[in-house]
Amino acid sequence: MSDNKSNLPALIVVDWGSSNFRAFLVDGKGSILDTVNGEQGVLSIKNDCLETVLLSYISGWLSKHKTPIIMAGMVGGAIGWQDTGYVNTPANLGSMSVNLCKANNKAGLQISIVPGVKYVMENNVCDVMRGEEVQVFGAVLDVEQTAGELSNQTLSETMFCLPGTHSKWVQVAKDTHRKTVITSLSTFMTGEIFDLLTKQSILGEGLESLGKTPTDMPSFLKGVGVSQIQSSLLSALFSARTLKLDKQLTLQNVPSYLSGLLIGAELAGIKSKLNDIKHVYLIGNSSLNTLYCEALKELGFTSSILSSATASTKGMFTLAVQAGLVTEKETQLCH
Amino acid sequence: MSDNKSNLPALIVVDWGSSNFRAFLVDGKGSILDTVNGEQGVLSIKNDCLETVLLSYISGWLSKHKTPIIMAGMVGGAIGWQDTGYVNTPANLGSMSVNLCKANNKAGLQISIVPGVKYVMENNVCDVMRGEEVQVFGAVLDVEQTAGELSNQTLSETMFCLPGTHSKWVQVAKDTHRKTVITSLSTFMTGEIFDLLTKQSILGEGLESLGKTPTDMPSFLKGVGVSQIQSSLLSALFSARTLKLDKQLTLQNVPSYLSGLLIGAELAGIKSKLNDIKHVYLIGNSSLNTLYCEALKELGFTSSILSSATASTKGMFTLAVQAGLVTEKETQLCH
Repeated sequence: MSDNKSNLPALIVVDWGSSNFRAFLVDGKGSILDTVNGEQGVLSIKNDCLETVLLSYISGWLSKHKTPIIMAGMVGGAIGWQDTGYVNTPANLGSMSVNLCKANNKAGLQISIVPGVKYVMENNVCDVMRGEEVQVFGAVLDVEQTAGELSNQTLSETMFCLPGTHSKWVQVAKDTHRKTVITSLSTFMTGEIFDLLTKQSILGEGLESLGKTPTDMPSFLKGVGVSQIQSSLLSALFSARTLKLDKQLTLQNVPSYLSGLLIGAELAGIKSKLNDIKHVYLIGNSSLNTLYCEALKELGFTSSILSSATASTKGMFTLAVQAGLVTEKETQLCH
Repeated sequence: MSDNKSNLPALIVVDWGSSNFRAFLVDGKGSILDTVNGEQGVLSIKNDCLETVLLSYISGWLSKHKTPIIMAGMVGGAIGWQDTGYVNTPANLGSMSVNLCKANNKAGLQISIVPGVKYVMENNVCDVMRGEEVQVFGAVLDVEQTAGELSNQTLSETMFCLPGTHSKWVQVAKDTHRKTVITSLSTFMTGEIFDLLTKQSILGEGLESLGKTPTDMPSFLKGVGVSQIQSSLLSALFSARTLKLDKQLTLQNVPSYLSGLLIGAELAGIKSKLNDIKHVYLIGNSSLNTLYCEALKELGFTSSILSSATASTKGMFTLAVQAGLVTEKETQLCH
């Protein structure tokens, strides 16, 4: 560790979802000093064991520096540590920070949990996310550090996509104070449907002994293409069977083709809702980022890949500063 | 049994799908004399045991009358008795009858299996069906016996829908000889996706101990409505979760709502492909027919429910006559 005071641990950032745990020790500038990853997601842990699991991951850091802890993700849901509720769109770091929840804990630690974000559509149907919102705020900061402030014109042609089990598409704008606000979000169940279809459906028959990971790019792009000309996904999906019967597709290539059909349908959904979109920032794991990147290119969008770890830590560090968890003095030390 | 010769058994009609067996003993007019139903679908039986299973169902009939047997459905597929291949659209009873396959069997019975129908779209993506095609031919005959011959104008505004695990939508026309021809078909994986979502997905969580059958009509129709305003099914599906989180939907009503979302998406797919459609003939089981009927009404279509047993037997009897399995002499006897 360097002797510069800015390198001293200032905050522990925890991104704790349904199926994964990820924590970052960050310094007074928000830079990552250390990372720990685990597969113990909130879904797999009893509510009253969450504190024990958290400590098992981060007690090494805490034994040296008693920094505050900020957590986001399903840890703040009804099945998590405690239900933090949702902040409505338009949501900015200000409305997020005033709704941070102090997390009860036996160890006497200073733990805050980030609320989720809720988007209510005209027909009173709503959509929600937890954890992705801080990544989007962080991603905007990340982009702006290189490219300068994003204008409302640019943002109206831009979306942030977090591919996964339940992919999130988020649009942001600048308010009158030039603060970033999340204006809308859409969840697509793409990853979960892919998983169900390859493991449990008639389309996955025979795949038991083969890989279910999409690896064949031509089959993937064929699926993307078919999804654009078939108006209904429920109907397009059956082509994964008929093309195999017709020997246009091998069994090995079914997962790649199906992935193309589903990601293609997701992109068609975004396209039909938001005609103006030209550029997409992808914040996901590397294999999904690659697939989305190729599908976006095929459909005439440009895209950039952003680091999910950077997005998480930048978003949560800034939120912690805004909420006064990391004092201005400590932040000042960094400059 | 009446003493009229027209009531003598003339043909055994077998509709043998992936998960169900249904056989009809029909007379020289094609009227049903007796029916047997079973749950031993083709998927659950080893290929070389199919003959034994068939005989276990119909040997009672055969012991009195050695009538020819005609079979349709997955029994003619690659995993069935023998692969009968497909007849391309436009398909009529003529092209179906010349492609009937004699089925090898140890008992020396006269068994014929109907080929499937294949529809090749412009982009070389194809769709197929097995068993539904004979029901559609039979349904047209059934309708025409009451309403008189259907004109091409009427047929251009009409579709035949066979709801199920893999719902089929079939359009027919009249050729220059005024014969009915199947011109197109579309498969929607609606039933299978409903099953996967209610049993295996995050949307089905907590439903284990509750019924998964859609029984609440208001929730069903709410799902139909949401499916029409949400452009992407992958996104609309997530509302089954958010509406529950938002207390707009109870857990008990999730299956009804999900069914509405899926059937609504199926109908939206048909609507976008075929703008002219005004009337739909439904050929399915009674609970599915009711759901489709209500959804169609909600979206401004009219519909009629036809008997699936009548459609199957009329279609296969006429095909058997055309192929000479039931001789003209026997048919003449009926009049």
